[in-house]
Amino acid sequence: MMKARVLVTLKSGVLDPQGKAIHHALEGLGFPGINDVRAGKLIELDLADGVEDSAIEEMCRKLLANTVIENFKIERLG
Amino acid sequence: MMKARVLVTLKSGVLDPQGKAIHHALEGLGFPGINDVRAGKLIELDLADGVEDSAIEEMCRKLLANTVIENFKIERLG
Repeated sequence: MMKARVLVTLKSGVLDPQGKAIHHALEGLGFPGINDVRAGKLIELDLADGVEDSAIEEMCRKLLANTVIENFKIERLG
Repeated sequence: MMKARVLVTLKSGVLDPQGKAIHHALEGLGFPGINDVRAGKLIELDLADGVEDSAIEEMCRKLLANTVIENFKIERLG
């Protein structure tokens, strides 16, 4: 058993209204020093041993991320 | 300038229909060896120097996470 996480983020040119709303709300709550906020998705995978990184990358390309507007990052956890 | 990410995940007893849907879809696409999928949120913060971890934790408690049903994890990036 093995855990991996996939972080899906909007590409840099893509507008992020959710991130803007969070940014605005944090400022409204009085938090100083926030330059920018970007919202993304986190997908945690609990995998059988032997699932390769290349398989996880294929999952991202086929389903988890929209690679036209999103980047993804795969991180293995122990 | 300093980056941090906040990972928001559902607590373990909380039903996760989005994760279930992703799991089902991955199996439908023929990916073997997936035991479980959990969906969460990622919030990337671009912060001024000097913003403390305690301030980020307060942002999580006040806005970013619903601590009744969600856990959060703060990670500093360089």
